[in-house]
Order: sequence, then C-alpha cells, then structure tokens
Amino acid sequence: MRILGIDPGYDRLGISILEKKGDETLVYSSCFQTDSALPFHERLFLVGERIQEVIQEFSPDHLAFENVYFNTNQKTAMDVAAVRGVLMYLARKNDLDVFEYTPPQIKSAVGGNGRASKREVQTMIHHLVDISHEIPLDDEYDAIAVALTHSACVR
Amino acid sequence: MRILGIDPGYDRLGISILEKKGDETLVYSSCFQTDSALPFHERLFLVGERIQEVIQEFSPDHLAFENVYFNTNQKTAMDVAAVRGVLMYLARKNDLDVFEYTPPQIKSAVGGNGRASKREVQTMIHHLVDISHEIPLDDEYDAIAVALTHSACVR
Repeated sequence: MRILGIDPGYDRLGISILEKKGDETLVYSSCFQTDSALPFHERLFLVGERIQEVIQEFSPDHLAFENVYFNTNQKTAMDVAAVRGVLMYLARKNDLDVFEYTPPQIKSAVGGNGRASKREVQTMIHHLVDISHEIPLDDEYDAIAVALTHSACVR
Repeated sequence: MRILGIDPGYDRLGISILEKKGDETLVYSSCFQTDSALPFHERLFLVGERIQEVIQEFSPDHLAFENVYFNTNQKTAMDVAAVRGVLMYLARKNDLDVFEYTPPQIKSAVGGNGRASKREVQTMIHHLVDISHEIPLDDEYDAIAVALTHSACVR
C-alpha cells in the first residue's frame, strides 16, 4: 500500500509518499513552495496541480493529511482550509481513501506522546525510515510524520 | 460575457449563470444539495463535480462568489472555506477569472446599501432579472445576487 502524506499549505506544501509492505519505505518527499507575489487563487491552483502530478506519478492508495482546525490567524486558517478542500477533492477524484489526523495524534503516533516536540518527532522519523536527502523545511518532515501516523493506524 | 455566480456551501450550494450583453439575463439558477449522511469529503467531491458540470454546460467566463471570512462556528467556517478552495481551483483549471465579494458589497451593489435586508435584496433581484421559476431556497438568490454584483462591477 502507498500512502500520500500531506502537510497542507499554500505557501509551503509538504509532500511524502510512503510505501508500506511490512516495513515502511519513504519513496519520495519534498516541500513545494509557491511565489507569495501571486494571487491566492493562483497559488491554490499550483498546489492542486502539484498534488495531481504526485498522485499520477506515484499512484498512492490512501491520502493522509494533517488537519489543524484552529489557528490564531483566522485568515490564514481559512486559506489553509481552502487547500484542504482542493486536496480532498483531488484525492476522491483519483479514488484515494481520505484520512485526517490532528497534530496531537501525529505526535503521539510518531513521537510516542501527544506533546512530543518537533525535534523529538523528527528524530523518530529518522529512526523509522531511511532518508537519503537533506530535509531543509519542517513541512516536509510533517508530511512524512502524517504518512507514518496513518501507516501505524492501518497496521 | 457569462458570469458563474456561486454561494459556496457543502450542504447547499447556490448556483447561477448570468449573461451580460448590455442587459442581464439569468440563464440558469439552482440550489444543489448534498446528503448530510455522507462524509464531508464525499459531499465536497459532489459539490466539485456539480461545479465542473455547470462550467462545462454553460461555459462561463468569470466566477463571482460570496466570501464570508468570519462565522460564529469555526468548524463550519473551515468546511465552507474548503468548498471555496475547490471552487477556485476548478475555476482556474477551466480558465475562468476569479472574483470574490463580501456580503456588504453584495447588499450594497444589489440592495442599494450595505445593510439591506435579505428581503430587500431578493425584491431587487426580481426587478433586475426575469425569473420564470420558483426559488425555494435563499442560497439560490444569493448566487444570483453575487453574479449581479459582479456584473455591476465590470460595467
């Protein structure tokens, strides 16, 4: 089974593809960024097109994404929710099953407890899967973490 | 020019197609409803598919939709924002230009002032365009109102 893990965002979109056959293998991960000079709907479109490309290239079976319902900035929360909408639409359009996880669920599944620090979660990720490239941005780690969370839940 | 007017929602989606050549003609309007027993991502998918169908059937040039950033219910606001995301993605995917209007802008453009009542706006809609069918739900009126607002703004 292949899991598409996503940390939704219009500024930075974390993407991972995790293959699960007994062990877990990280097939792909990246952070897709859009130009802040573009209008929002254009950035949203580029994010959607990138998601569609990744689905076509790697043929994942399940989508798992991090869902943050509350945010101190209402405008940002709404714009991230719009990305969540595009993501769910494209997943269903491509026949993926859809699963959402909250940050405490992810910290608990990967970091061992719901209040694990970002650093603890990232250290655990390196224990769980081989990563052969540099990961400069947290969004990419977050996308791997949510895919690992889903993998643990469907065990 | 043809305007696709949308009142975004996953429970009820207001849809209108307004043709503007000097005068305005309402080509189509309806309210699309989804079954509340379905999971959210399924309802979102059905809404997206309906939007895609309407775009294909009527070939609008512009999308105009009502955008409510603030809502007393944060969860509902987030879910409506997800619909907004799907809507903007599909508009851009089909080469429509995208325009958002707030409720005060719509009330002002159609009802004559930013604090016009729903009833006043609906009465004005009947003055502005011929409507040959019954409109049972406000969402459909709202979709016509936002299309008329955009029509007034591109005059």
